[in-house]
Amino acid sequence: MTNKTINASILIIGNEILSGRTKDTNTNTLSLWLNSLGVKVKEVRIVPDEETVIVETLNYLRKQHSYVFTTGGIGPTHDDITSKSVSKAFNVKYQIHEEAYKILEKYYKPGEFNEGRQRMVWMPKDANLILNPTSGAPGFYIENVFCLPGVPSILKSMLGGLKNIIIGGKPILSNTINLRTVESEIANSLSKVQNENKDVEIGSYPFFKAGKLGVSIVIRSVDQSKIDLCNEQILNFVNKKKIELIDR
Amino acid sequence: MTNKTINASILIIGNEILSGRTKDTNTNTLSLWLNSLGVKVKEVRIVPDEETVIVETLNYLRKQHSYVFTTGGIGPTHDDITSKSVSKAFNVKYQIHEEAYKILEKYYKPGEFNEGRQRMVWMPKDANLILNPTSGAPGFYIENVFCLPGVPSILKSMLGGLKNIIIGGKPILSNTINLRTVESEIANSLSKVQNENKDVEIGSYPFFKAGKLGVSIVIRSVDQSKIDLCNEQILNFVNKKKIELIDR
Repeated sequence: MTNKTINASILIIGNEILSGRTKDTNTNTLSLWLNSLGVKVKEVRIVPDEETVIVETLNYLRKQHSYVFTTGGIGPTHDDITSKSVSKAFNVKYQIHEEAYKILEKYYKPGEFNEGRQRMVWMPKDANLILNPTSGAPGFYIENVFCLPGVPSILKSMLGGLKNIIIGGKPILSNTINLRTVESEIANSLSKVQNENKDVEIGSYPFFKAGKLGVSIVIRSVDQSKIDLCNEQILNFVNKKKIELIDR
Repeated sequence: MTNKTINASILIIGNEILSGRTKDTNTNTLSLWLNSLGVKVKEVRIVPDEETVIVETLNYLRKQHSYVFTTGGIGPTHDDITSKSVSKAFNVKYQIHEEAYKILEKYYKPGEFNEGRQRMVWMPKDANLILNPTSGAPGFYIENVFCLPGVPSILKSMLGGLKNIIIGGKPILSNTINLRTVESEIANSLSKVQNENKDVEIGSYPFFKAGKLGVSIVIRSVDQSKIDLCNEQILNFVNKKKIELIDR
């Protein structure tokens, strides 16, 4: 088995995030889900509803990473320009997707599948559908680019349908050690552990809880035995320093 | 008075965001704050704790935008590499900042300003401090790049000190119209309003509240009279279509 890392980037599309009107939560949803499938998220970009920016960013990201996930801009209004932009990025026709048309024709009551709604079945030629169990209108993917809606609850409900399509690498495992201490107390010792285990990712994150300071140390690797080794080395200096282990 | 747009990008630094362990909320905090100062956020990037990536991304962003704000990576542990990376990006020495040293020496009890904590006063040569009323250790800025910590409460507490340093453009004004409808019902009419008012940003955002569907239309411009004109045009078609206006 090769050790090739499967990675991904996330492209969040929408003026409402950049204006601060809407808090992006899709980055977190997608990151947790991708990491659980063994796909490492390398980069996230948030861009406005501007065709040139979307096309350029997408063409960069899709060549850099195994997968790209976009969110937002696939609804029926004038500011929903993701499908058209993806078509331009791939230089393919932007056209009615027959299967998506049939799905929505059936989904809506007679007469309700109006012009606005029909905009949602325009997609890049030969796009594959991502079914939407919440509100009918499907997302789509073309090559390694997966286009999902911006509404968090709808996005979440569509991930299940992608499980067998996204091929991940080895799952990324992690272990967290929570300590009643401050980062500066452990910085040098932790640095030593990181230097001795360069292929393991060790993060240190201060937190406040119930008015008290603490630090979470997170050890991440695809190899459990490497995590265990770091864990042992960290607990070793924690004991020596008489630092209290705590729950979070 | 010129109409030059003052813009900014945000660079979120940290593996913990890309792994999904931590939800980024700093993008939202900074976006709201910058927009309130008349600074338009054009782009956000989230990158891992990797020096090459940080240096390259920063050197791109700082040439593109009036301001760049980074968050994360200025603490005392091995994974805090922002200050060093910024020094490399600007090709200046990474060294002890005398004023920051004095601040922390005074902030901590005698003997507590240990080696780990001293790491936090290493900064790019000639950096200007951003004072930290919460936990002592300052952030810094160099030219148009402002480096803030990742812990949201600390970041928030440091923005007040920047108010007179960030020079914004005309404040970006907005008006929101909430409707009991679905996007597809208004898509065509709204599109027409957007086409007739190309320099105004009109966004359409579906929402669910108490089990009912609704749409928020957000009109944004630096010019109140343009907002008012769009508002009138939208209310016009809303009345004709007998769509209910609601509160959110």
